[in-house]
Order: sequence, then structure tokens, then C-alpha cells
Amino acid sequence: MARRLELHTDRLFPAEPTVRSIARELYAQVAACPIVSPHGHCDPAWFADNDPFSDPTSLLVRPDHYLTRMLYSQGVALTSLGISATGHDDELGPGTARAAWQVFAQHYDLFRGTPSRIWLDQTFIDLFGLDVVLDGETADHYFDVISDALTRDEYRPRSLFESFNIEVLATTESPLDDLDGHKRLGAEGWGNRVITTFRPDPVVNPAHDGFVENVAALGTLTHRDTGRWDDYLASLWERRQVFRSFGATATDHGHPAATTADLSAEKCQQLLTGALSGHLDDREADLFRGQVLTEMAAMSLEDGLVMQIHAGSRRDHNPLVHRLYGRDRGADIPGPTDYVESLRPLLNRFGNDSRLTVILFTLDESAYSRELAPLAGHYPCLLLGPPWWFFDSVEGIRRYRRAITETAGYANTAGFNDDTRAFLSIPARHDLARRVECGELAYLVSEHRLTLEDASELAEDCAHRLARRAYRLGVR
Amino acid sequence: MARRLELHTDRLFPAEPTVRSIARELYAQVAACPIVSPHGHCDPAWFADNDPFSDPTSLLVRPDHYLTRMLYSQGVALTSLGISATGHDDELGPGTARAAWQVFAQHYDLFRGTPSRIWLDQTFIDLFGLDVVLDGETADHYFDVISDALTRDEYRPRSLFESFNIEVLATTESPLDDLDGHKRLGAEGWGNRVITTFRPDPVVNPAHDGFVENVAALGTLTHRDTGRWDDYLASLWERRQVFRSFGATATDHGHPAATTADLSAEKCQQLLTGALSGHLDDREADLFRGQVLTEMAAMSLEDGLVMQIHAGSRRDHNPLVHRLYGRDRGADIPGPTDYVESLRPLLNRFGNDSRLTVILFTLDESAYSRELAPLAGHYPCLLLGPPWWFFDSVEGIRRYRRAITETAGYANTAGFNDDTRAFLSIPARHDLARRVECGELAYLVSEHRLTLEDASELAEDCAHRLARRAYRLGVR
Amino acid sequence: MARRLELHTDRLFPAEPTVRSIARELYAQVAACPIVSPHGHCDPAWFADNDPFSDPTSLLVRPDHYLTRMLYSQGVALTSLGISATGHDDELGPGTARAAWQVFAQHYDLFRGTPSRIWLDQTFIDLFGLDVVLDGETADHYFDVISDALTRDEYRPRSLFESFNIEVLATTESPLDDLDGHKRLGAEGWGNRVITTFRPDPVVNPAHDGFVENVAALGTLTHRDTGRWDDYLASLWERRQVFRSFGATATDHGHPAATTADLSAEKCQQLLTGALSGHLDDREADLFRGQVLTEMAAMSLEDGLVMQIHAGSRRDHNPLVHRLYGRDRGADIPGPTDYVESLRPLLNRFGNDSRLTVILFTLDESAYSRELAPLAGHYPCLLLGPPWWFFDSVEGIRRYRRAITETAGYANTAGFNDDTRAFLSIPARHDLARRVECGELAYLVSEHRLTLEDASELAEDCAHRLARRAYRLGVR
Repeated sequence: MARRLELHTDRLFPAEPTVRSIARELYAQVAACPIVSPHGHCDPAWFADNDPFSDPTSLLVRPDHYLTRMLYSQGVALTSLGISATGHDDELGPGTARAAWQVFAQHYDLFRGTPSRIWLDQTFIDLFGLDVVLDGETADHYFDVISDALTRDEYRPRSLFESFNIEVLATTESPLDDLDGHKRLGAEGWGNRVITTFRPDPVVNPAHDGFVENVAALGTLTHRDTGRWDDYLASLWERRQVFRSFGATATDHGHPAATTADLSAEKCQQLLTGALSGHLDDREADLFRGQVLTEMAAMSLEDGLVMQIHAGSRRDHNPLVHRLYGRDRGADIPGPTDYVESLRPLLNRFGNDSRLTVILFTLDESAYSRELAPLAGHYPCLLLGPPWWFFDSVEGIRRYRRAITETAGYANTAGFNDDTRAFLSIPARHDLARRVECGELAYLVSEHRLTLEDASELAEDCAHRLARRAYRLGVR
Repeated sequence: MARRLELHTDRLFPAEPTVRSIARELYAQVAACPIVSPHGHCDPAWFADNDPFSDPTSLLVRPDHYLTRMLYSQGVALTSLGISATGHDDELGPGTARAAWQVFAQHYDLFRGTPSRIWLDQTFIDLFGLDVVLDGETADHYFDVISDALTRDEYRPRSLFESFNIEVLATTESPLDDLDGHKRLGAEGWGNRVITTFRPDPVVNPAHDGFVENVAALGTLTHRDTGRWDDYLASLWERRQVFRSFGATATDHGHPAATTADLSAEKCQQLLTGALSGHLDDREADLFRGQVLTEMAAMSLEDGLVMQIHAGSRRDHNPLVHRLYGRDRGADIPGPTDYVESLRPLLNRFGNDSRLTVILFTLDESAYSRELAPLAGHYPCLLLGPPWWFFDSVEGIRRYRRAITETAGYANTAGFNDDTRAFLSIPARHDLARRVECGELAYLVSEHRLTLEDASELAEDCAHRLARRAYRLGVR
Repeated sequence: MARRLELHTDRLFPAEPTVRSIARELYAQVAACPIVSPHGHCDPAWFADNDPFSDPTSLLVRPDHYLTRMLYSQGVALTSLGISATGHDDELGPGTARAAWQVFAQHYDLFRGTPSRIWLDQTFIDLFGLDVVLDGETADHYFDVISDALTRDEYRPRSLFESFNIEVLATTESPLDDLDGHKRLGAEGWGNRVITTFRPDPVVNPAHDGFVENVAALGTLTHRDTGRWDDYLASLWERRQVFRSFGATATDHGHPAATTADLSAEKCQQLLTGALSGHLDDREADLFRGQVLTEMAAMSLEDGLVMQIHAGSRRDHNPLVHRLYGRDRGADIPGPTDYVESLRPLLNRFGNDSRLTVILFTLDESAYSRELAPLAGHYPCLLLGPPWWFFDSVEGIRRYRRAITETAGYANTAGFNDDTRAFLSIPARHDLARRVECGELAYLVSEHRLTLEDASELAEDCAHRLARRAYRLGVR
């Protein structure tokens, strides 16, 4: 028998009645604030084309590595979820999509206690009006209801964008991207609503798939000899300016470590030459990436782009999954990540310049109180990004605030990021974060560590103002 | 004046009334579930012989390194607790046992706020009907009551086993063990109730006391030349099969690091030869242990034994205590432990095979959210063992679930282990874990992160079903 | 409009009514206990001279690196806070002091959620009777009220000391210090109330500013050739004895790592010679510091001084700030800190001797449960110091007790340290710690993990008895 699915109005608030009632009051003030989404992975083509989304599986399951990871860990074959070695963007036939949805539904219990479950349930209810729990028996009902909705105009990408009350959403593109989606969006007056972010990893990380070809392609784009260090930098600078013209206010850097470097031009040329001939060892590749970070900081001082450093993920830990199914299939595993020594070269050059903003992200929670809060609580250029990836969750946000605030306060944090390619989950993700932030503020108020008046201001800061300020996004 | 000792019916539940009432409801469902104890260190001879336990000190104090460690840290001489350099298994005279008990009782206050105190108090009340707090004044009363009880038939090992409602209990033996206790248990129809576990550390760890002699003895047992790598492996395989015939469903590996390796046969032979001639340096010894782990995984794929890896303890950190009193005297200290890089070689070979089960344990809690939950939340072969050793406690279990669940869910965890040689504490240990797990589930329900219905299922999973499934133990 | 400032009687207690009422009851017992302050950085000259404090900025803002750090991180120039490159001890003109106070006040919101805010607000209310929140508009009012108070006799250092109910306060001095303040205090009968602590870093750390000159000065003081290892040690010993004569019961060692060493006299001489000729690399400097720690332990066994090891801070991470404004300006950043391997050489020699007391501090919270509690829960010589620096806070103390107690109990901890140079904040700091400790005990009582009677004893232990015992301070 189908189980009833419902959203409790007090969900994610602490149970203690005093705390809960304060949380409720704070949340009421921010629940309807516009969504500011300064970092994420949506496809700009969705909004440029404004075509209907194809089917529930392609929309909600296949691209969500939180889901496919967990299912895989319990022995579910990725192929049974519609993922194939030929690339995950192929259109699924309706039978395949429905069968994959059934597999997902039968294993939906695995997500009990995870944020994915919270985001999905809220999406099912708020967006599709579903009122029974997803399981093997209700799978077809879900598939039908969602499929039907997706054919309707109000479920097209731009309508959803409007109904989600998104004010601005940043996507993330490679310097090699032609930004076609953003061009078309600009032409249709959406240029300030969907903006790009400059993410140069494919031309910066010697270990990236196709690095050598990518750097060559960068040279072709900019008519420069990217085998020369000065031309390589000039090419990056020029692409940054193109990205700025498509609304970018930030760059983003996904590196295995937070290493930065400050080497001589001669040494830089040697590393670039080595990278392009495939001769760098791991340490040198790390140094090369680290040197580019420092160069990016120098450019940010010129062009005002905010730097984001997402450090510490060991990408594609599982070579079999990487070989068969490609990147971003859930096999990226965090490791211990140093910031104190790694960031020295960059900070020695630019750390005291408050015109620069560098936002740090971590997957190593032990660094929150030990390194990140002390660094952000001292250096004018540093802010801490919100809990990232695995930690964008109820407990994750609680641990973050409790480890960070006493040392770095709220002002040295950068507000919320949804960081998602799961477009439909964006309202639920922001809602979760707002509820948990209000709960944390209520906890402080209940212990008389903060006045209600201050908590009320900080709730709004957390909901959108910190993000606007950190990412230099104006108010519409 | 003696202080009253009592067990509150709501103990270990969160205080908040809504949470507490949910916890109570969940606990009521699992309080009487049979005990499944898939990993521990009881002596099979206790149950084979079924002799009465000798005295309170030998039973409850002397073998419990949680207790002796704390007492030693506050200046209590180990000899005053009946522990001597001549080996801790000597029988204590009644005067010595009583005097040692008095020392323990006088320092019982040291355990306030520790799980040992909770386990012991519950044992004193539930098993011996004691109703005053243990201290210097009540020590003799305790000694008399417990001594008297131990002479009675219902306090013999098998009777206790029955009254504890233990369904199955795994002990842990060396490949060199003759399994005499298990043989006798099998002959008396107890073979499915007390099973063995294959723990090859004495013949796998070049740093183990007597390693060279142990490997030779392994060869004698199996009539093989264990100086040859292929014969060494074949000997291990043969002993595994003997252990399987005595009920083993698992192996266990206590290593200082989680290193695994995948070397050529030639290199393996070199390492074995080096180990047997005492010529390995620390790195090579680590590599040798790591290679054996990978070989054990290969064998597990054949014979179905579940692998347990207990990584990260620096054994016998205190050489004086080790020299005078031997192993397991409380001087094992954890250190930082890497899993992401260490497990690569094993995972590269077998990580995607869902027929293999590898259960990971850690003493480095910073790895929970950073490495272990992401690994277990991806690799089909991996499960996370319960909080180990120092963390088998109220706060330890809470931290574990909060750090793990949002990434890895419940299904990637292996249920509870009591992991103890303190047989009498087994019911109290399982009770503590059940209470705390129910409290955690109630916390999720109270915030509407989980339905009561789901919590109820998960409470039973935590109480015994996850352990059965992880360790491949059938239902009687 | 000015916002009302008030102290709630239940502040810092958990909100849950049962827990709160227990916390209230426990706190009532310890609220008025005398303050024992065994480690801190007050200037003994304040009490020797007993001159009025000069102005609010010099007293409360300029020397407090918790404040200047946060302000600097948000772009406030240190010079605008009255800090100049010419040294921070210059007297500020009244206009400069007032202007700097205004800057501080305008940014006071940055401290919401931090312990600094809690300490300051309590000081403002309890000591100066202020009843509006500090901000840009109330800044002048604050400055006037505080300035006025400071001219009154009851705000002189000794009067405050009395009114704070401080029983004993330890300051921290270099071996090169002439202890003039302490001499004068002794002459006036204050010798048992303000005592010194022997902190030899300037003559022990080869990386310390002026190390070579410092070691030479040490030789001049003791009429010894401190270029010889035996004389160097003898000089340290002699200075320790002088410090003892001024009340010292402890030494203190602020090292970047917890490294200890046990080298031959020949090797020690080589390292000393290298250090004095500026030829040690980082590893050798670490070894040198580590060897001195072991020597200090040997001396402690002779003279009974308690050793404090404050390990893990990377001092002066920001070279610009260091060059312009000197040490202790907020640019000290913690890093990962090993204890298990680092302490081996010292522990191998003295770890089992319960006549020795070594108190360990950390800025790496991941070591609490992994290394520090297991070490302190085993070695007779070890105690854990209270949460240090960034962690001397509500959440910091909660994390500490929850990570430590289950393994090491209360008896292996050293009570509270205020560790401050902010003399006026001492009552508020002890009050915060007492409230939070009582809250933690109440939490245990509410879950029936501790009896109220035991909690009551432990509350008093935490308030002052553990500190007295750890630091060998008698009761007046």
C-alpha cells in the first residue's frame, strides 16, 4: 500500500520548542527571498533553447551523481539507470527511461536520512503535486505524473526559473566553450539572469583529459602561441574578458590540492613546456596548477573576478567506472587537504589586498576550525565558501557554522551555493539551507548568544545577501 | 554512606520530550531483539568448558584494558590490579583478587562520563542485583555478591549466553590456533552459536611478536614450505577453509595502516623472504601486510568470507608497559589514517565486485565524512563498520551517524559490533548502542527528516539486521 | 536608536528546560568560586605599579588579537586601531584612542556569534554598567564611561584583581626577563597571588626573533658559556630556579610541532652550535626544540615544575603584517599536529613517571579523540589542557568535552585556563567556561549518564579544583 508523502511545515527545525519557535519566526522572514545562485552546473542551453525536459529519468536521476553513486554502492548497475559507455547525454527511449525509473524507485529507501531524499521529496510535492512515497509500486504513477507535467509550458526551463524566483544563476564553462547558450540568452534579455563562470581546469590541469589539445585549442581561439608562458597567460586573460562580457563575476578552480606557487617566468615556461610534452610528474603538475592559481589572483586584481578554489577531491578514484562511464559518476573521493602551507605563495603576494576576493571550499571538515576559519578570520582577501558537496546537508551546515562562526564570524563566509546540475532541486536546496541556517541562529538566540534582532539580520544575510556581496552581484 | 545505584528507564535518550518519546517508542521495538555479535574477543574455551568464572577481578577488571588504562593513567600500579609480568591469565588468590577489587572500587569515580561506567553499572544491576554505587566502602559487598553469584549454575558461561539472548557470537583466532574450543563446541551442538573468525595478523605482520616462528608453524600445520610465496598463500587458504568449517564467516585484519598493494609474484617473494630474514624496513613491512590484504580479498571472492580491516592503531606505544605486562594493556594509540590512497590497489582489483564485502573500521574520526562515507557510498564491495573501540560510546555513535548517514545512508553500514573480551558486558553494550541509535533516529523523526515508519525499520536494522546481512549470518 | 544591552541569567545554558534547570543548579554552586588562573599573559607590571589603565582602546582593543584579527580580515587598517609599526605599547593620544574606539565600535557587529562578543558584552555590563549595545552611535558614550571609570581607584589593577575574586594568576615570562614586576609584587606581599611561568621559547626556538642574541644574553645572566650544551642546560636550570623563587609552578613551551627528541650529548652540541651559527634547517630546528622539551621534562622531575606544551601554531603566517606590526597580530594559523609519534622520545623516557605532569594543548581538534584522549587516558604523566585559543568558546568547550571525556574522563584534564592578556575579560572568560561546563554536565545528567551528585562534584572540579591540582597550586 502506498505510503503518504507530505512536507511538514516545521521540517529541519530543531525539535526543542523554544528553539523551534524562534527558527520558525526567522524562517518566515527569508522563506520567500529571491534565490541567488552564484555557483552551479546547470546547462545554459536549457534556458537558451527553452525546450521541454525530456523525461523523469534523464532529468532527475541520470545526471545526479549523488543518486547514481549510492545506487551503485549497493550493487545497482549503472546501465540499468540508463547510463551507458557511449555518453550519458543520449536520449533515452521511453521504455528505457521508465525501466530505469523503476530501478531507482525500488531503491529509494537507500536515501533515508540523506539530503537527496529531502530535496527530491520536496520537489515531488511542491513541483509535481505527488502525495505518495516513491517506491517500486508507485514508480509508474510518478513516471506518468512527471512525464505529463514536463510536456506543459509551465515546466519549460524559463517558466520554472521564474516560478522558482531565481534572480540570478551562474553556470560554469570552460575557456574553450563558445558560450553559445549565453550569447543567445543575452540576445533575449536573459543575460543578467543566467551568467557564466570562468572555469579553466581543462587548460590548467595537466592531468585533465585532453589537456594538451585543450591548450592548443585555447591558442587557436585567441590566435596565440599557448606553448609560450606569456601567450598562455594572455590567452587566459582574453578569455576571462569574454566571459566577463557574458556576465561572469567569478572564476572557479577545481584542484586536487590547494597548492599555490610563485615561481620565476623561466620556471613557469619550463613547467608549461613539460606539461605540454606530458613530462610533468605529480609534484610538478601540482606546482603548475598552483602557479596558475597565483596568476589568476593577479588577473582578478585587474578585472575584478572573484576566485573560487574547490580543493581536495581525488577525481575518478575508480578507474573502471571512469573508463566505462566517464567523469562525474560518483567516484570522486575527498582526501586530507592542507591550506595553511599551500596558500602561502598566493597569500604572500595578494593576501592583504582587500580588493581581491578568494572563496575557499573544502571537503576536509577537519580544516574548518583548524585552518580555514583562522585564515579567513585574518586575511582580507579570503572568504569561506558554504559547505560543499557531501556537506551541503542538515548536519553538514550545522557542523560548518559551529566550527566556523566563533573564529570567523558570519561576514567572512560567502553565503549559500547550490552547486548543482539538478535544476529542479534548486528551490529545495535553498530551502534546506535557509531552514538549517535559521535553526542554527535560533539555537544561538535560545542560549542568549545572539539577540533576535541580530539573528533576523543574519538570517537574511545567509539567505542571499552574503552571496550577493561575495560574488559582487548587484541587486536587480 | 552508600549512594543508591539505579538504571533509569529513559537512560541515554535525548532529554527533549518529543525526541525522547519517539526514542522510547523505537527502543521498545528492539530492546528484546536477539543479540548478534559478529566480532569480538571472548575465549571459546569459556563456553566449551562451561566452568564457573573464577572471581570478580579476573572476570571484570584484569582483562578490560578500558579499565586498566584509565587507572594506570592516574598512577595506579598495574600490579595492584592483579596484573603481573608473568602473564595476566594466572589465577589470582582470593586475597589478591579482593585487594585488587578494592583498588578498582576506590578509583571507580574516574569512569564518570565514560561508557565503561555505563556498561559496568548496568551489569552490576541487571546481572547481580546490586543497588549501591561501587566505591571503597562498598567494594567488599560487591566482591561478596559477585563471587557468590559466580558459584551458581546460572552464572556459568552457557547459561549467561542463553540468558543474554545471544543468537550468535564470533570469537577471533589466529591461523595457528588449534580451534580446540570450537571443536568441542561443535561436538556439543553449539557450533552455530559460537563461531570463529580468521585473524591472520600473527603470520601476516612482520612486526608481530614471533612472526618468523609463526610463519614456520603455519607451514608445519599445513605441511607446506611457507618460505615460498605460493605455499604461504596456499597455507593461508587452507587454514581459512578449516576456519570456515568452524563457522567462520569473516576474516579480521588489525593493521597499523590501511595500506593495500598489488605487486608482482616476484616482488611478493622478495618481501616474504625479507620478512622471514628480518630485513624489511617499515615501508616494506607495510607493503607486505598490504599485499596480503589484497590476497585475502581475492580469497574472499572464492570462499565468501567477509573481510574486516581494523586500521590505524599504533600498538604498544609504551615500551615499558609492553615489556613488563605484554600486549593489550591500554597503550595502543590511534594515529591519522589514510584510506583513499591506501585502499586503491585492492579497490582497483576488486572494488566493483558486489560479491565481495570489506568492512572498514577507523580510529580516526576525521576520516568518517571525508573518506569513509564517500568510499562506502560508492564502492559496491565496501561497508563501514560501527564506531570502534574508543568510539563505541554515546557520543561516538552520535558523531558516527551524523558524519556518515548523509553520504552513505544506513545500508552501507555494518550494524553493531561489541568487539569485547568482557563477556558480561555484552548485553549492556548492545543495549547502549540500541538506545543511542534509537535516539538518533528519533532526532531525525523529530525534525521530519525521516518518517516514524522508516525509523522503526531502521531501528531494527541497526539492532541486528545490518549485522546479519554484513556478516552473512543466517537467521536461526 | 541605541539597542538595549543585557545579560540573561540563563545565558549559555542549553535551551531544553530539563537540561537548563540542571545547569542552573550546578552553576549556582560554582558561580562564586574563586578564580584560579594558572596560565595567561597579563603584564606583572600592572599589578606591581598599580597605575590606572590608560584608555579604553589601549586596554580593550589594541592588545586583543582576537579583535584586531577579525577587523583586519574585513579590511580595517590596523593603523586605524591605533596600532603602529613603531610598537603597540606607545601611549595613544586621547584623540587617537577615541577615533580608534569609533572604528572598533562601527565594526562590532562582526563579532556576533563569537566568544569575544560574549566576553566584551559581559565586561561592559558587569564592570562598567553599560546598558546599550556598542555601535557607531554609542561609541562615544562607551569611551566616556569607560575612560571615566578607569580614573577611579576601584578600577586600578589590584582593586580589579580583588573584585574579580582572583586567588592566583600566573603570568608568562622569558628566561631573560629580570622579573622586576614579580620582585616588587613579592616585596608587597603579592608574591603568592601573581606568580610567574617559565617560558623559554626565546632561547629555545632557533626561529625566534633574536635567538642567537637571546642565548648569549642567557649566558651573560648566568655567567656561563651557553654555546656549550652542558652550560646551556645549566643556565636553563638556574633560571628555572629563579622563576621558582617567584612563585612559578610551571613552564610553558609554544612550539610549531609537538616534536620531542632524545639524542646523544654530542648530537645535542652539534645542534646547538648549528643553531647559534644560523645553520639549522627546519628539520634540525624542530629536533633542537624537541630535545630541549625532553631536557625540560628531566628538569621537571627534579624541580617539580609542571610542563605545558602549546603545539601546532604556525606563527606569523603573514609576513607583511609581521614586518609592519610585529608578533601576535592575529596572523598565527594552526596546522595539523601529530602527538603520537612526536611525543614518543619524551614519553619513552618519562611517560610512566607519575611525579611528572605534562599538560598538552592543541589547535587541531581532530587530535582530541584520535590522539590526545587516548594518550592522556594511558600515560601517568599526561594531562590535557583546556580548549585553547580559537576553541576557548561555547562550541569549543562542548566539542572538547564530548571528544575527550568518554576516553580520558575528567581527571585527565587540567581545568580551565583563560590564557589571556585581556585582564578585564578574565571574569567573563571563567564565567563562560563555568556555564558551558555546567551545561555539559547537565546534558549528561539529563540522559542519566551521570548522577546529579557526581555532576555537582565535577562542576566544582572544572571550576577550580582540576586547575589547582594540575598546576600544583595550594589552597590559600
